Amino acid sequence: MDAIAPELEPLAFLIGTWAGEGKGDYPTIQPFGYGEEIMFRNLGKPFLVYDQRTWSLEDRRPLHSEMGYWRPKPGGHLEVVLAESTGHAEVLEGEMGDGALSVVTRSISRASTAKDIRRVERSFRFEGDTIRYTMSMEAVGQPLTRHLEAVLTRRG
Amino acid sequence: MDAIAPELEPLAFLIGTWAGEGKGDYPTIQPFGYGEEIMFRNLGKPFLVYDQRTWSLEDRRPLHSEMGYWRPKPGGHLEVVLAESTGHAEVLEGEMGDGALSVVTRSISRASTAKDIRRVERSFRFEGDTIRYTMSMEAVGQPLTRHLEAVLTRRG
Repeated sequence: MDAIAPELEPLAFLIGTWAGEGKGDYPTIQPFGYGEEIMFRNLGKPFLVYDQRTWSLEDRRPLHSEMGYWRPKPGGHLEVVLAESTGHAEVLEGEMGDGALSVVTRSISRASTAKDIRRVERSFRFEGDTIRYTMSMEAVGQPLTRHLEAVLTRRG
Repeated sequence: MDAIAPELEPLAFLIGTWAGEGKGDYPTIQPFGYGEEIMFRNLGKPFLVYDQRTWSLEDRRPLHSEMGYWRPKPGGHLEVVLAESTGHAEVLEGEMGDGALSVVTRSISRASTAKDIRRVERSFRFEGDTIRYTMSMEAVGQPLTRHLEAVLTRRG
């Protein structure tokens, strides 16, 4: 077990594996349900490694996945950098509060064949061994609209 | 073992674990050596999961790490999206050829506290169980300059 860097202490409770289910919706798609697993790992550095994947509740085929780094900064500030299997790369920033955090895209960029996403907002609430999150996005010509919400519980 | 998506076949030989050593240099730093491990994983989808970490050759402390997705497209085109522990997110694109590939940043974005990097070029050559790569970058006021080169061999 690597030591926890002092900068990481506000988020150290996240280290481990979380899983659960969520639902997705958007004006341009049919609503859908999904299974999800998130792992937060500590390397002894002042960031968490974040590794996420989702799957279909119907046939367990893999759906979205994303990975990156959560970088807590002094004063409750948080930087998150993400790569997504859909061909997007996000840099999000925001604030960590008491049992909650919220980050918004500072920039989102995409590969040539990826969908046009302009802004993403991600909010998390933490209570005991439960994570609840929502994700809203401004994409494919739609205004900022709720896209995802999920509840995960600790699995390890 | 998940099936290989047809789009992934040109890069299927990468699936597995590679490790070796590299050297880094830049006009603003002292030259350094590093150890490196890269894993390419297949999820049965038309991309490879890429997970990389480096460490100091002196004391094995972790140095840089990055993760993301390699998305081969028709006609030998390749899209790569990366998140980096340094607070950067890259979208790179380029071409896959015979035993080689090269990608250049379509965009690179950074968190508030991350260093200013403007352009990255990454080139890979493949021969048997060996990967050789170079990485050049335009950063912190310097013109495009070689930053990294490494040789990795298959470990699994």
